[in-house]
Amino acid sequence: MEGNPVHRVSAGDAWSSSMHPDIESERHSQSFNVEELTNILDGGAQNTALRRKVESIIHSEPELSLKDNYFMTQNERYEAAIKKKFHILMLAQRLGWSEGSSELQYASRSVSGDLGFAIHHIFQKTIRSLGSEEQIAKWDPLCSKFQILGTYAQTELGHGTYLQGLETEATYDAATQEFVVHSPTMTAIKWWPGDLGRSATHALVQAQLICSGARQGMHAFIVPIRSLDDHSPLPGTTIGDIGPKMDFEHTDNGFLKLDHVRIPRENMLNRFAQVLPDGTYVKLGVPKSNYLSMVVVRVDILLGEVLPLLQKACTIAVRYAVIRRQSRLRPRQGAPRGTTAAGAPSVPHDPEAKVLDYQTQQQKLCPPLAMAYAFHFVANSLLDFFHHSYSFILDGDFALLPELHALSAGLKAMLSDFCTQGVEQCRRACGGHGYSKLSGLPSLLTRVTASCTYEGENTVLYLQTARFLIKSYLNTQKSPGSASKGSLPQSVAYLTAPDLARCPAQTAADFLQPELYTTAWAHVAVRLIKDSVHHLQTLRQAGADEHDAWNQTTVIHVQATKAHLYYVTVKIFTEALEKLESQPAIHQVLKRLSDLYALHGILTNAGDFLHDGFLSGAQIDMARKAYLDLLPFIRKDAILLTDAFDFTDQCLNSALGCYDGHAYERLFQWAQKSPTNTEVAD
Amino acid sequence: MEGNPVHRVSAGDAWSSSMHPDIESERHSQSFNVEELTNILDGGAQNTALRRKVESIIHSEPELSLKDNYFMTQNERYEAAIKKKFHILMLAQRLGWSEGSSELQYASRSVSGDLGFAIHHIFQKTIRSLGSEEQIAKWDPLCSKFQILGTYAQTELGHGTYLQGLETEATYDAATQEFVVHSPTMTAIKWWPGDLGRSATHALVQAQLICSGARQGMHAFIVPIRSLDDHSPLPGTTIGDIGPKMDFEHTDNGFLKLDHVRIPRENMLNRFAQVLPDGTYVKLGVPKSNYLSMVVVRVDILLGEVLPLLQKACTIAVRYAVIRRQSRLRPRQGAPRGTTAAGAPSVPHDPEAKVLDYQTQQQKLCPPLAMAYAFHFVANSLLDFFHHSYSFILDGDFALLPELHALSAGLKAMLSDFCTQGVEQCRRACGGHGYSKLSGLPSLLTRVTASCTYEGENTVLYLQTARFLIKSYLNTQKSPGSASKGSLPQSVAYLTAPDLARCPAQTAADFLQPELYTTAWAHVAVRLIKDSVHHLQTLRQAGADEHDAWNQTTVIHVQATKAHLYYVTVKIFTEALEKLESQPAIHQVLKRLSDLYALHGILTNAGDFLHDGFLSGAQIDMARKAYLDLLPFIRKDAILLTDAFDFTDQCLNSALGCYDGHAYERLFQWAQKSPTNTEVAD
Repeated sequence: MEGNPVHRVSAGDAWSSSMHPDIESERHSQSFNVEELTNILDGGAQNTALRRKVESIIHSEPELSLKDNYFMTQNERYEAAIKKKFHILMLAQRLGWSEGSSELQYASRSVSGDLGFAIHHIFQKTIRSLGSEEQIAKWDPLCSKFQILGTYAQTELGHGTYLQGLETEATYDAATQEFVVHSPTMTAIKWWPGDLGRSATHALVQAQLICSGARQGMHAFIVPIRSLDDHSPLPGTTIGDIGPKMDFEHTDNGFLKLDHVRIPRENMLNRFAQVLPDGTYVKLGVPKSNYLSMVVVRVDILLGEVLPLLQKACTIAVRYAVIRRQSRLRPRQGAPRGTTAAGAPSVPHDPEAKVLDYQTQQQKLCPPLAMAYAFHFVANSLLDFFHHSYSFILDGDFALLPELHALSAGLKAMLSDFCTQGVEQCRRACGGHGYSKLSGLPSLLTRVTASCTYEGENTVLYLQTARFLIKSYLNTQKSPGSASKGSLPQSVAYLTAPDLARCPAQTAADFLQPELYTTAWAHVAVRLIKDSVHHLQTLRQAGADEHDAWNQTTVIHVQATKAHLYYVTVKIFTEALEKLESQPAIHQVLKRLSDLYALHGILTNAGDFLHDGFLSGAQIDMARKAYLDLLPFIRKDAILLTDAFDFTDQCLNSALGCYDGHAYERLFQWAQKSPTNTEVAD
Repeated sequence: MEGNPVHRVSAGDAWSSSMHPDIESERHSQSFNVEELTNILDGGAQNTALRRKVESIIHSEPELSLKDNYFMTQNERYEAAIKKKFHILMLAQRLGWSEGSSELQYASRSVSGDLGFAIHHIFQKTIRSLGSEEQIAKWDPLCSKFQILGTYAQTELGHGTYLQGLETEATYDAATQEFVVHSPTMTAIKWWPGDLGRSATHALVQAQLICSGARQGMHAFIVPIRSLDDHSPLPGTTIGDIGPKMDFEHTDNGFLKLDHVRIPRENMLNRFAQVLPDGTYVKLGVPKSNYLSMVVVRVDILLGEVLPLLQKACTIAVRYAVIRRQSRLRPRQGAPRGTTAAGAPSVPHDPEAKVLDYQTQQQKLCPPLAMAYAFHFVANSLLDFFHHSYSFILDGDFALLPELHALSAGLKAMLSDFCTQGVEQCRRACGGHGYSKLSGLPSLLTRVTASCTYEGENTVLYLQTARFLIKSYLNTQKSPGSASKGSLPQSVAYLTAPDLARCPAQTAADFLQPELYTTAWAHVAVRLIKDSVHHLQTLRQAGADEHDAWNQTTVIHVQATKAHLYYVTVKIFTEALEKLESQPAIHQVLKRLSDLYALHGILTNAGDFLHDGFLSGAQIDMARKAYLDLLPFIRKDAILLTDAFDFTDQCLNSALGCYDGHAYERLFQWAQKSPTNTEVAD
């Protein structure tokens, strides 16, 4: 064995010196090298080493432990997260971890992001991208030294997704050279900004600029909201916490009501627009970088937040599924249950079956596991594409921006949807114990489900991708001559690829060919996109106006977009595997996941494949056979595949999912620490 | 207007005297009489009147308010639930509400079941059904007077679904005429029983009986666990709370470790078996009533717990969807955004669109609403069938028991699955505010999702129904002569009904014929059941043993069972509507829900209908058109359909979902009460 299992187990736990035999047996014969797979996931062995080094530093600090989280109130969670944040900042200073370094990212991962002041950094970044050089010079050092604490205040009580609908106003008063920032209605109250409820001294307020009697749209203003002396709310502000949420208790999401608060003219971020002393509005450019920062945030969320939540859920559920034994695959031999035959032998406790040996349990856990791997490659591919596009954008070439936006919006929606479903499936697969917070699973769920709503509500995002798909499709129709493959963005190039009318599969084994299932997904996506455009055009021709026609076809557009995104993810996964052919053992195990991922999608969307006869009923049966036959193979490697994610026990923070398999001992021990048992006199 | 709106609004809320115009306009023209629909849901106008009378009593007691629930710790929730329980018991005594009366059921509904000691009643009922007359005479009055507090201790740390796997032992000691009750392993610790963690004085322990050296299987024992003097744990017991859970904080789910605890011989419940003083085991019958009580509990859960959670989620989400305005269906006319034209008019705040006017929002909320109605009729039909069967069972005729068991198991699984999905869909449809606990939606979700696991894990239940379906199908094959419709249980009679090879639908309108879509569902269910039996038999013929063959086909059996259950629910809903034809306005609005329910199922399982060509792709498109065309009609009645559930504001306990539509005012006001704002000095 390599050093990693030692790394993974909880330090100091009485049980960790011994492995539960039911989990040990799963690790006996390894069909691939787990350490190599971990290195692939980390993007290189040197990253694995660095990550582990950081994790061992973090886990050696008792102040950074997560173990009491499940027993804390909202206030306690918030205060603990602030303390952890400052503790890590102190460590970073001592150890020379710079802002944005891998070390700090790994540090955040190892405490599951349970840190305060996440939005303070968004505040700082926004000033850097929307502020003038002068403004950056003034505010940035204050942020870096935490002499001020910022929040980013965009969302309002009555307004979320639709930026233009925000009601907060900043009216310029030329007489005093000030902006009057004001919440004119109840629905204009800023609501949800993180770090606002109890922490922030300054808010970056997105408000409707009004000067010289004209509305100029949304602009960003720095508004001091709490005293730097005693932290009390400044005159004109009403501030507080928005109250209990499903999760994110470590963040003080807050509200901010502004009553004619005056700020100096210099507090409008003015890289792209400014108001002259006399109230003249001057536009200095279009903040495309603002748009781009939205893309970055979405990619970051997928890699840093959403995907790890699914990977952790898989790790916990798979580990518990080899420890947990329920019922028997076969009845006991000759058990004299219920008879009074005096001579009947006392039946010993012959073991019940591991639940992972049940086909229905494999059906629950293998698809999320396959997704956890698929989405690793998808999210990294999206990150690569972002870096690639960014280099062009820096040169002033924005040609890739529409595709980047469509892909990042769509993939954020799809991955957050699927990860949420997957986490809940893992949670339920653990039976009653999956309902205990001590399993770690409830908080994975309540946290991941938020990602379907924040940073762009998923339906809105699907529809943004849909518009890109429609436009791309219409481009292929406009001038057949010029619509060569090269002229379409890469992710939609398949719209003009040659297409088969029927799938050539003749056996179940044929469905294990990546070329075959990728083509099948392309076929379905193209058909559904065509179909959605056709519906839109038919309504228009029948006299519906543009907006009615759009609204009445949105359900169909979402369906088409989901097929497109599934195609994209299947393609990325298969292409990523091609690069791993030099590591045949790992290639083999990941290819099974890729096959399962593609086939699971085909079977759960069988209607889309049967609709035009591309697949026949008999072929669906073949695909199902191929799918069901994969389950026992993936089951055999399941523990190793989750070990490869290399989460430490401390980071998983799960009584059910520790590396050593001693689930019941931990559940029993952890339950004793509950305030219900410690604070109450019986 | 009838009296009911007055009944529904929160007493004492400042806003309730005025309706939000956006919700008022939804109630202007009523296409049906809401009060009549409420009466139908209540099972008669007299029930509606009684329910409201009870609710107004309950809501006039400040001690029974739910409004601080979202701000409480687990301990506080538990203590509040105990206080509420005793308050209601006092009320019941004063007002003459007898045990099991409608009044007490309505009282429980009006506080959303947020009461302590629910399991105490299970303890009492179990003694009634498994105890001898003598035992009942001794223990029942103690329970009724709360002189003892009971818990029902079956589930163990390592054992849930599989009763025979329980490890707790009760060994008879003839020398002292006592049972020695003992947890021989860590996994044998009783875990999850409600009312155990902090409350119970006595546990009804399910344990393996050992007497005269032989194991006799599970029996029930009354074990005193806490002192009746000072409530301290008795010698040999280790007791506590199992710690934080996703929800059910009002219940002290606990653990119980027994170390050779001795109880008198009389404490084994001995209606069906007893141990004589010398240790001889005597069987006195088979406790079928035990089996039956499992069925009752499942039916009760559907009606009393699961379904109301979905209905509440629909009410909240639909109400908020007509208040919440986001973006515009059409762009502003002539908005001079971003120009500096001095003369440009200041653009007023023209209203954004109600989110319920978006097709995608209708697609999110209409199907759960249709399910909330479908399942009302389904659960009531199951209750009727239970009463019908019960009358036969009382006469010693157990012929209906297998069907009753299969139906109740399958419908419990299906309805809890669908209600959980539906609640989460409603929650997410409310955007960010659906993530705030103050919306009421998070706790509806965390509560309903538990129902997928407790009282029989859903996959296990689906497979129990599957075995009944296989047996029924094989019966139709055995002797074709006798397999007339009459000989099959009613819910599977369709297995021998004449079947069409292809659906005759030629237009979208054809898909609005109940006969057509019920037949379509029957066709698919029969095909899938045949297919699953075929797979099982093929594996057996290829030499797989019975248990391997079963395990390798369970995924297919679950799929077939789900189709069967969908068919059953469609059929029950359509039959229930036939009885409402005398109320044409109500019939019309409910028929749309029935159509939507059936079509939504067809479209989300389109592959099953296309597989053998029963539906063509063109027919699926017709069904989709019929489905999409229904959405705006249901949208129009959506507020009235949720009003008809007649939940009081106090019972909904949602800042977003109150009757008057003042969602934002309440969110803002309720947030102020958060301990984060009240307990912390800034």
